[in-house]
Parts: sequence; C-alpha cells; structure tokens
Amino acid sequence: MKIGIIGLGLIGGSIALKLKEVNNKIIIYGFDQNTDSLDYSLKNNIIDKRFNPDSLIDFDYIFLAIPVESIKKQLKIILDKISKETLVIDLGSTKYQICNSVKTHNNRSNFLAAHPIAGTEFSGPLAAQKDLFNNKVMILCETENTNTSLLLSAIEIFKKLGMTIKTMDSLEHDKHIAYVSHLSHISSFMLGKTVMDKEDDEQTIYDMAGSGFESTVRLAKSSPEMWSSIFIENKKYIIESLEEYILNINNFKKLIEGGDQENLNTEMKKINGIREILKGIK
Amino acid sequence: MKIGIIGLGLIGGSIALKLKEVNNKIIIYGFDQNTDSLDYSLKNNIIDKRFNPDSLIDFDYIFLAIPVESIKKQLKIILDKISKETLVIDLGSTKYQICNSVKTHNNRSNFLAAHPIAGTEFSGPLAAQKDLFNNKVMILCETENTNTSLLLSAIEIFKKLGMTIKTMDSLEHDKHIAYVSHLSHISSFMLGKTVMDKEDDEQTIYDMAGSGFESTVRLAKSSPEMWSSIFIENKKYIIESLEEYILNINNFKKLIEGGDQENLNTEMKKINGIREILKGIK
Repeated sequence: MKIGIIGLGLIGGSIALKLKEVNNKIIIYGFDQNTDSLDYSLKNNIIDKRFNPDSLIDFDYIFLAIPVESIKKQLKIILDKISKETLVIDLGSTKYQICNSVKTHNNRSNFLAAHPIAGTEFSGPLAAQKDLFNNKVMILCETENTNTSLLLSAIEIFKKLGMTIKTMDSLEHDKHIAYVSHLSHISSFMLGKTVMDKEDDEQTIYDMAGSGFESTVRLAKSSPEMWSSIFIENKKYIIESLEEYILNINNFKKLIEGGDQENLNTEMKKINGIREILKGIK
Repeated sequence: MKIGIIGLGLIGGSIALKLKEVNNKIIIYGFDQNTDSLDYSLKNNIIDKRFNPDSLIDFDYIFLAIPVESIKKQLKIILDKISKETLVIDLGSTKYQICNSVKTHNNRSNFLAAHPIAGTEFSGPLAAQKDLFNNKVMILCETENTNTSLLLSAIEIFKKLGMTIKTMDSLEHDKHIAYVSHLSHISSFMLGKTVMDKEDDEQTIYDMAGSGFESTVRLAKSSPEMWSSIFIENKKYIIESLEEYILNINNFKKLIEGGDQENLNTEMKKINGIREILKGIK
C-alpha cells in the first residue's frame, strides 16, 4: 500500500508513525514545503520517501495535513490528477468550505472530508506521536459524496489508528467546532496576551502563576499559521461564539461590580455541570 | 506542637496531611462549619482532633483556609483571643483587604498574610493531597508587620511543606494575581458557560471536544463559594483585567472579520512567547 502525506507536522507525522506500526508493508511518501520538516521526517524514519505533489504516483491514499486554506487550494489540483483508485482525505479543522470547493468536481467521490479530534499545542514533525489518535474521535463529513468502497476502506484505516468514527453534516461540524475548539483557542491566546501585556516582569508570572493559569493558557502556544487559517475559514461561527463569550463576560463582570455573590454562585454552580460533560472526554 | 486549621478543604486538608508527615509529634486540631468535611477529616486521620474556634486553646499556629470574605470576618475575632505565642496565618487568594482589616489590631504582629500558589480545580477534604505544596511558591505579604521570630518559624514550616518563599506588597499581590490567576478562572468559567448554553446536546460536546477544550475549561469546575468571594474582594483589579481581556478579544475579532491573516499571525506569534514563560511554572 502506498500512502502520500502532504504536510509533515503534528498530524501528518503522527499518522505516518502509526501507519508504519500497524502495517510494515505500507510505504509512506511525504511532502512538506518546509524542507527542514521534510529532511527531519526522512532522517527519523517518519516517512520512507519524499514525493513531489506535482507528479503524483499511484497512491492508495493521500492525506492532506496542511492549514485549511492550503487544503482548499491543493485539493482541486490533486483531484484533477489522481486515478479512480486513490482516495484523498483532508484532515482540516473546518469542513464546509472545503467540501463546497469540490462539490461539483468530477472526482468528488475520491475525496473524504475528515477531522481528527486530536492534537496538542505543539507543531511540526518533532511533535508527532504514534499514539496521538488512540481512543480519539474522527469526524467524517458528507460521506454520502464519497465512493462507498473507498470510504469503507478509509474507515478501516482510522480504526487501525485507534479511532472512533462519527459522521456529521459539514456546516453542523463547523458550527459546533467553533464553540468547542476554536473559541477555546482564542480565549487562551487572548488570556496569554492580556497577562503578557500587563506583566512586563516575567519573573512575576513565574512566581505567581500556578497550574491553573498554565492549563488555561496552554493553547496559546499553538501554531499561528494553522490557527489564523482556521479562524478566517470559520469566521462566521467563530464570530458568533466570540460575541456570546464577550456578552457572558460582560454580564459576569456586572455581577462582580455589583458584589452580587448570590448570583455569581448560582451562575458558577450551573457551569460546574461541565464536570459531568468533561468526564466523557477522553 | 499544636496546630489549628480552620477550613478543611483542599488547602487546609493538604496542609494537615503534609504537616503530620514531616513531624509526627504535631497535633492537628481541625474545624469546618461543614460537619461532613469535619467528620471525613477526623475519620480519615487528616486531623487528630476537632476544636471550637470560639474557645481557642494554646495553639502554636492557626491556619485560616476559608473563603477570603470569611477570613476577613474571622481574623479579628481570632486575633482578639490568642496568646502572644500564637501565629495566625491566612491562606486566602487576596491579601490587601485582609491585611488592611487588622492593620491597627493590637495583635497585628501575631498575624501573617500568606498565599500558597497551589491548588487544583477540586475542593473539599477528599481533594486534599499531601504533596500539593511541593515545589510551589508561598507568597508572604507585609511581613514587616509580623513578629520576626514568629515569621521565621513559619517560614521554616513552609519550607518543610516543600515551598519556596517570596515576599510582596499586598496591593501589588492583588493586582498581579488578578491577571495570572483570577482572570484565567473567569475566562474558563465563561468558556464553559458559552459552550454549555449553545450545546444542548451533551453528546456533541463529548464527540467534538478534545484535550484542548478540556484544558482550557478545567478551572470551570472550581468551587463557586471560594471564587465568588475572591472576585468580589479583588473586584478592582479583576474588572481592570477583564476590561483589557475584552478589548483584546474585540481587536482580535476585528482581525478575523477583516480576514487579516498577516496581523493575526503577527499577534499570535508574539503570544507564543508564553512558551518560554510557562517553562518557568512548576
């Protein structure tokens, strides 16, 4: 089996590592426009060979593990060139515009829109981990537009990566993910900014910040290029979620200003219900 | 040595556990207005005996590990009753108003204002851990107003808990801590609220939320009573930090609305500098 991976970062690198573990007959071809990432991946046996996306060979699967705006640019070009036996799978964090960009493409049925709910705040092939996808959810969108036998074979691969499969409409995906993922990245980046702007003296942050701050600000270490691309692609729902977030903060601020301990307690007790929800997150 | 602990939650319980480990001659007397917490602490040997704060005995140290508004109420009453040999130590997350409330008290020198930068999102004596304070920072405020020999003996105890000591002006403490701790609690509570309000279907949150969301929303599990008390006590600086936070979010939102990827990248790259700062947090 020949697999091409475009984008050798955290996601692309982790898929490569795991696939090689589950099937040592798989040959992994990798490409990254960052030559350091490509060289590192070859040297460390994350991939077996390099390839040029301009001259594709007869891959069984091509994974696109690049920023979402690049997926939109590359996907059409790649679908133009592939054979009927190849399935192209994108792994971006937004799905509607990507699906929409190829909805009338002749080879639409050779494409599968996927979003692995897995990641860390680190990026690049050094951050790749072979067990990144273990016990994680893979969301597949608009599967009715993918050739059934190619779809089923891809699901087998995701299961080998240790994943559970969920299917979802692409617009629904983008709307929900704005709240449960994209919003938390922005809240974390902005927390980091607010504290850094205020605290010129880094030593003060070291001394006074505990594990709570570290946990809340962790996502502010994430890749700017990846996230700016997502924020713009999913602008509509992200802005909606940000407006609700700001409204909630303003209301909470008013309760603090008014010294309204009773309503602060009531509000926070309700939010404590997140404990039960979080128990479900692996 | 006789030690009284008022408030047998995460902090009070953890101090009790560690003190008993480092010196088995210490007798720990505990009180909590929640009789379940008191009974649990006795039954599980977190404390040795119960005591009534209305009739204090000759303690060497009394720790106040209760919400900050309760500290303000109790501290004066306790200072009225103690002997010259007793040191009362409060462990609240705000310091200025507490220090101010006893600044002219006759026994002011028998009081030490302390803030351990340690905690988890869990509360109550079940959450107590004997190594909670290990390698953590203890901030002491206005130490010039504490009797020197009592102060030095308290520092010895904190070192036995595994802590590093920092001293700070109480107003400076409250200002900085609003940014590096209190703000992150509010951002996390409000993230939890925004997602829960939107996602009626909890299954969607389970399926789509990853470890990033979990990390960012972790503090939304914290105790409402403890935190409403802190938010109101440190209102001035918390509101200042919230206003800056909202301003930053609004500016970031405008960049997203305008599709300004270049400035989004520049902004996030700067914030990525938090990586180096976080390395310093234990």
